[in-house]
Amino acid sequence: MRAVDIIARKRDGYALTRAEIEWFIQGYTRGDIPDYQAAALLMAVLWRGMDDRETADLTLAMARSGEMLDLAGVQRPVVDKHSTGGVGDKISLVVGPMVAATGLPVGKMSGRGLGFSGGTLDKLESFSGLTVNLGTDRFLRQLREVGLVIAGQSADLAPADGKLYALRDVTATVESIPLIASSIMSKKIAAGADAIVLDVKVGRGAFMKTEADAVALADAMVRIGAGLGRRVAAVVSDMNQPLGHAIGNALEVKEAIETLAGGGPDDLVTVALTVGAHMLLLAGQVPDAAAGEVRLRETVTSGAARAKLRAMVEAQSGDGGQVDDPSRLPQAPVARVVPAPRAGYVTAIDALELALTAVELGAGRARKGDPIDVAVGLVVGPKVGAQVQAGDTLLTIHAASEAAADQAQARALAAYTLADAPVAPPTLIHRVMT
Amino acid sequence: MRAVDIIARKRDGYALTRAEIEWFIQGYTRGDIPDYQAAALLMAVLWRGMDDRETADLTLAMARSGEMLDLAGVQRPVVDKHSTGGVGDKISLVVGPMVAATGLPVGKMSGRGLGFSGGTLDKLESFSGLTVNLGTDRFLRQLREVGLVIAGQSADLAPADGKLYALRDVTATVESIPLIASSIMSKKIAAGADAIVLDVKVGRGAFMKTEADAVALADAMVRIGAGLGRRVAAVVSDMNQPLGHAIGNALEVKEAIETLAGGGPDDLVTVALTVGAHMLLLAGQVPDAAAGEVRLRETVTSGAARAKLRAMVEAQSGDGGQVDDPSRLPQAPVARVVPAPRAGYVTAIDALELALTAVELGAGRARKGDPIDVAVGLVVGPKVGAQVQAGDTLLTIHAASEAAADQAQARALAAYTLADAPVAPPTLIHRVMT
Repeated sequence: MRAVDIIARKRDGYALTRAEIEWFIQGYTRGDIPDYQAAALLMAVLWRGMDDRETADLTLAMARSGEMLDLAGVQRPVVDKHSTGGVGDKISLVVGPMVAATGLPVGKMSGRGLGFSGGTLDKLESFSGLTVNLGTDRFLRQLREVGLVIAGQSADLAPADGKLYALRDVTATVESIPLIASSIMSKKIAAGADAIVLDVKVGRGAFMKTEADAVALADAMVRIGAGLGRRVAAVVSDMNQPLGHAIGNALEVKEAIETLAGGGPDDLVTVALTVGAHMLLLAGQVPDAAAGEVRLRETVTSGAARAKLRAMVEAQSGDGGQVDDPSRLPQAPVARVVPAPRAGYVTAIDALELALTAVELGAGRARKGDPIDVAVGLVVGPKVGAQVQAGDTLLTIHAASEAAADQAQARALAAYTLADAPVAPPTLIHRVMT
Repeated sequence: MRAVDIIARKRDGYALTRAEIEWFIQGYTRGDIPDYQAAALLMAVLWRGMDDRETADLTLAMARSGEMLDLAGVQRPVVDKHSTGGVGDKISLVVGPMVAATGLPVGKMSGRGLGFSGGTLDKLESFSGLTVNLGTDRFLRQLREVGLVIAGQSADLAPADGKLYALRDVTATVESIPLIASSIMSKKIAAGADAIVLDVKVGRGAFMKTEADAVALADAMVRIGAGLGRRVAAVVSDMNQPLGHAIGNALEVKEAIETLAGGGPDDLVTVALTVGAHMLLLAGQVPDAAAGEVRLRETVTSGAARAKLRAMVEAQSGDGGQVDDPSRLPQAPVARVVPAPRAGYVTAIDALELALTAVELGAGRARKGDPIDVAVGLVVGPKVGAQVQAGDTLLTIHAASEAAADQAQARALAAYTLADAPVAPPTLIHRVMT
């Protein structure tokens, strides 16, 4: 085979064979095929697309490009969840402990935040001493012994995906449904998942801005699952306004702990129960999603979910006492209350703008490797649909200094739309696809 | 500017600005923009195309990427010709001396043969001692003093084109009309041409296989000329059967000399006169193409054209005596006459197959830098439309050995179609575009 012939076939609109895809991905991973040929192929794929069989083949080829996690010693099935990224999205910190507390093991490899999108690893590191760098042996032992582990991805997991993702970022080939779908799914499959629930976010504070795009991505991932013999469900959920109230690492951990203790905000609870119930359903633990929600609520009432989070934090060398007493999590020195400048109804809260405000405060990073401040962020008050009086608290800014709070205040306020006429709260769960 | 944003704009179907094109080409030439970003842009251009203004801007940016030949000391206008490459295409060796003999200077930078397509430099080196490596000063002096020079392209002429062409070759991005057109035109413009006559070949033995593709390429180049203030004409000529009779370097030189002496084959004479007459017309030397043909025929009758070739060969350190006595040009040891296996009409001669047969004999090269044997090749007898009797000479193979002639004989014969019903000779000049 020759790389140039494979590029030409895709350029001319043909479907690539499984052998061609595997040969290209293996050659690219080894460095035998140069970046410039991969870049040309990526642009041709963005142009011509890939059918379901090609996309599944690409996913498996990338999954097999490095280590495949061996979950032989773990109770099956292994169920994973993945969010496409949003603002205030602490679902993994809520649903992981709940599902694990029902007895179904949850072993999750997560990422760090970049740009407007937060990362579960950064949030977890709010716990004093907690490590996310476990290595494969420790990851598997904790999964067997605790039933819950959230750790960083091994560098050798789907290395072809890592290399291709970096190339897509600089060649304007990110926005391709088959490429996005196969990138996500390759890591989940390399990590050993038998079943996967995808939380596909849609709206201002998500990568997918329209429901059509979100549904197309969800559909592509469900089909990859079908092609590779994995059970996959996708929840398409709203991300126009932030999820829950907290944006920022320790602030989100506190909100997750409150939710596990029975006190979380409605939207966060709804999305967590929907995602978690489908994890139980795919694993064959419950007859339907409604029964799954009942089981998950029981883990909250009983305190089992919160205890599971504490056990995980301690197994990862963190301070479990902070789960019992979240006030001991890092706190920013300045808490600036921002009042509503007028009376009216909250008709929009721009999740993207609030996320970028939080990044400016230090809660996120513009470039890979930038340091972050886990204590800072925003806590949103009334959500879309609520009525406010002038002077009511609109949000609270948690900042490292008064100057930083000053700077954030104007930008955060500009993210709000207050109007005279009421609006209904937005639909939260757009659809569930299986 | 960022390269990734420029790639994204072309990917999304927008026309790039002149500033974007210049910035990208300059950055790529300097090595600041890596091959993988250029490869992604090339595939996006192949997909989305470029409008006339973009194509002209790309041409000029590539022309300006290196040295621009300064023809200040040379009589203007300077007229160039370019062939897109064919089989038996010795037009430059005929039309260059003819046009120069009318008093219009011809300074041409040519290439070497690759694959099925021959190169004028290789043909010229059939003359003992002749050099094509002149350097800029000697090129310009010969152009002023002799009025005719055909030399190798300076390495620094349009280096962006050279770099992009090599990249296109390995990224399946060759077949794009704006990229092909700008590549050809950038070198002509860097070489200082005020007016250019393009000989766009179409058929089995050409890069453009259909008239529609050839016309599209010709049209794109004429429009580039319009965009950049250069007078351009394009002749679309047939290349299904070889042009003239000779295929192979010294054999083609002999045929060119015969043509300059008044004895050339009709098809070669017709294409040479058409191209040459439009060179004179674009230069304002004649009122119309017909008058141009008369002027060119006079240079043959008077012997001035042949004398001009001799002067050029001698100025380039070659043996001018070989122009007066072409039998002193290199001759292959074996001349194998191939007889017609049956009586009938010649209805097709596959130019590509004959060209590849000549390459196998050693007349051409499969890879850049391969050595060639200037003496070997083929001399085609009766052309399409002719009637033959069994045993008539169909062609003569000039080979380095009897074994090589044996091998070539079957392949060459297979390129012929002999049938019972006559066919008309093919149309030679499909159209002339200005």
